[in-house]
Amino acid sequence: MLPELRNQICEANRALEPSGLVRLTWGNVSGIDRASGLWGIKPSGVDYGALTPEDIVLMDLEGNIVEGKLRPSSDTKTHLHLYREFSEIGGITHTHSLYATVFSQAGRELPCFGTTHADHFYGTVPIVRALNQDEVDEDYEHFTGVAIVERLRELRLNPLEMPAVLQRHHAPFTFGKNAMDSVKNSIALEMCAQMALSSLTLNPDLASIPEHILDKHHLRKHGPGAYYGQK
Amino acid sequence: MLPELRNQICEANRALEPSGLVRLTWGNVSGIDRASGLWGIKPSGVDYGALTPEDIVLMDLEGNIVEGKLRPSSDTKTHLHLYREFSEIGGITHTHSLYATVFSQAGRELPCFGTTHADHFYGTVPIVRALNQDEVDEDYEHFTGVAIVERLRELRLNPLEMPAVLQRHHAPFTFGKNAMDSVKNSIALEMCAQMALSSLTLNPDLASIPEHILDKHHLRKHGPGAYYGQK
Amino acid sequence: MLPELRNQICEANRALEPSGLVRLTWGNVSGIDRASGLWGIKPSGVDYGALTPEDIVLMDLEGNIVEGKLRPSSDTKTHLHLYREFSEIGGITHTHSLYATVFSQAGRELPCFGTTHADHFYGTVPIVRALNQDEVDEDYEHFTGVAIVERLRELRLNPLEMPAVLQRHHAPFTFGKNAMDSVKNSIALEMCAQMALSSLTLNPDLASIPEHILDKHHLRKHGPGAYYGQK
Amino acid sequence: MLPELRNQICEANRALEPSGLVRLTWGNVSGIDRASGLWGIKPSGVDYGALTPEDIVLMDLEGNIVEGKLRPSSDTKTHLHLYREFSEIGGITHTHSLYATVFSQAGRELPCFGTTHADHFYGTVPIVRALNQDEVDEDYEHFTGVAIVERLRELRLNPLEMPAVLQRHHAPFTFGKNAMDSVKNSIALEMCAQMALSSLTLNPDLASIPEHILDKHHLRKHGPGAYYGQK
Repeated sequence: MLPELRNQICEANRALEPSGLVRLTWGNVSGIDRASGLWGIKPSGVDYGALTPEDIVLMDLEGNIVEGKLRPSSDTKTHLHLYREFSEIGGITHTHSLYATVFSQAGRELPCFGTTHADHFYGTVPIVRALNQDEVDEDYEHFTGVAIVERLRELRLNPLEMPAVLQRHHAPFTFGKNAMDSVKNSIALEMCAQMALSSLTLNPDLASIPEHILDKHHLRKHGPGAYYGQK
Repeated sequence: MLPELRNQICEANRALEPSGLVRLTWGNVSGIDRASGLWGIKPSGVDYGALTPEDIVLMDLEGNIVEGKLRPSSDTKTHLHLYREFSEIGGITHTHSLYATVFSQAGRELPCFGTTHADHFYGTVPIVRALNQDEVDEDYEHFTGVAIVERLRELRLNPLEMPAVLQRHHAPFTFGKNAMDSVKNSIALEMCAQMALSSLTLNPDLASIPEHILDKHHLRKHGPGAYYGQK
Repeated sequence: MLPELRNQICEANRALEPSGLVRLTWGNVSGIDRASGLWGIKPSGVDYGALTPEDIVLMDLEGNIVEGKLRPSSDTKTHLHLYREFSEIGGITHTHSLYATVFSQAGRELPCFGTTHADHFYGTVPIVRALNQDEVDEDYEHFTGVAIVERLRELRLNPLEMPAVLQRHHAPFTFGKNAMDSVKNSIALEMCAQMALSSLTLNPDLASIPEHILDKHHLRKHGPGAYYGQK
Repeated sequence: MLPELRNQICEANRALEPSGLVRLTWGNVSGIDRASGLWGIKPSGVDYGALTPEDIVLMDLEGNIVEGKLRPSSDTKTHLHLYREFSEIGGITHTHSLYATVFSQAGRELPCFGTTHADHFYGTVPIVRALNQDEVDEDYEHFTGVAIVERLRELRLNPLEMPAVLQRHHAPFTFGKNAMDSVKNSIALEMCAQMALSSLTLNPDLASIPEHILDKHHLRKHGPGAYYGQK
């Protein structure tokens, strides 16, 4: 079923390692076919280099496995909740990439310190709160998704305009139009986090860039008047 | 038209990724043939690995496309203004390379802290001011070029002796005798910015190197008495 | 003798360089076959790229060379003592990997600042004290092992739940179920140390993650109820 | 003449780029044949990838070119003075490697903060003073060598026990038994400088390691009782 979706998800997962976003098996990418309501994700603990399209685990939006012999990523319920709540998104990437994880661990949101950030994320990338004991005991991965959705809604952010969050104590999740697009947002997030850390070293009181520069850069790449890239 | 120029520009753009200067499609190189007044630039949003000499968009100094099927870089008007105002330069590189961008974001000029810097940049690499709301609304990319030219002239700097600027909130632009030479200056700028950041960590009050060391290192590589490299 | 063990140890040593854990010849991996009580280690000062299974030096648990033409690693007596005292472990890796060595040099233990750490190390990675003059004079490498065992026992830590230590002034040692598993723990330790250093830069007062998050992440990967990876 | 020496020097220069020690053409290695008193060095400004043994410029100890069609490195007179004054050394490497250059720029000597350093450098790596206006005007590269020799003698250091110096405002020079050995010392110096910078970030008051640990680690690799490596 859905061989093209499987290929896309496999290719997106295999892009994690050469992009420098993961070590060992610390990351997973999923993608959804909205027409059928089916989605696929990396199997748990499998090396990226050995991954084939057949290994991708296909599921429905109730979380039932539809096709696949392997156990899906341990973070599956987080992805599931995000696909159910955010109908705009077509792909999700979760990694423990170095600098985005540093901001998550330090519990600091990532302000927009430059146009590199503005090109991809329309404002400050938010921190998502830690889960409490009850949530962890009941269903850790599900409530991780709940907390992410709660935070973006609280801030009235659209997940394609703000396709990244930093989970406190943990690591980033990024979204995209499809699996590979969410990986590209993880690459952009990691670079912006690294730039931000060093920018704060040089200038600890650094403020976000002016609104008119943020708008210009974000909107020349995204939205109705965009003129970046080929038509 | 101008197959050799196209080749040079293509090769210079393809050198960005292996040099570690760009992620995704965050950078572009252009080059000019002063005899014909024609110049070429990377098409917008195209992956470096897929770039061929035929993809390079050729333009005249009025900004008209002379040859090419693709849309040119979104930064084209910045390059155009620089070629019109700085007749000495033959190539321009724009990237969001990590440490040069950090200095741009932090709004800090890059002093000459060592001979590595002196070998390439004859003094402090300047910060170019941010554009105001009107400039952004009217023609963002054009006024970026205007602000760069304004800053170098204000400081009485020659763009081949000071072949780099850091645009506030944004990222660096470098110049060169041709396309590849401007890429080499981007590599040098990035390394000097990284060295400077760590040098300031070790010694927050670090001053620029003495004038006689700056002169010696810059002039043994550049100018009439240079003795670096092969004749 | 024991060709499979030799292969595993050779492969684990050869994984050090591409993993970015070693420069020059700064690291060694060993592995043990508990059934026969024989163990093997990298020969001293040999380049990783040139290493073959035949080069691995096989020893018994008295430290006698059983098979092998080369001189074993200068750190052999440290490994020997650890295998004698920690019957749970099947592999040991010693490197001078950058950030784990930085914590060792600075004499700072490595707190659990995030789930990346919790996934691999069940709490704070301890510092092992420096050896005194007498211990260095009498048998430096042996007493290094003694100090490591002493420290883990003092803290009532199991070497597979806390498969890493940082030796003061020196560098890390990691343990594992087998040779390659100990290398993976070195990779994880290095990444966690790098994350921790930058996390402390962003937030100098950062505390360890809450106990219920530590337990959840460690136990979903390890122990009887683990559900990470394939069955 | 001396084809084996040419090969060694060529190979050592070609090792600089894959070792991460140089960008562009920022570095050079030389080696000497003490029997004939002839030595060779990289030609100036030539890319490492294109270098062949025939390109190495052979000279005598008066600085006369004996064989070679290319212009020797602009740093030739520094190497010449070092070979004349330090009869123990057989190879010299000069690079602008990132972290060693940071210490040079910041004007800070590099203390021995751990056994990685002790294994290669027997104590604090010294800073060599900047040259004054007269020295720069008269013969910059020659007086660079003079200042290096002066500093090591002042500190009563043997160039094979302390095979590295950091020139103020500039960058490191390392020595070795032959060309490749001096490159290995550059690799070790760069790693130790990077470790030291981060160690100081974690612990700004960090002191050098105790003498008995320094002695143990240096002498188990060097000197009459050394037992590191193969016999």
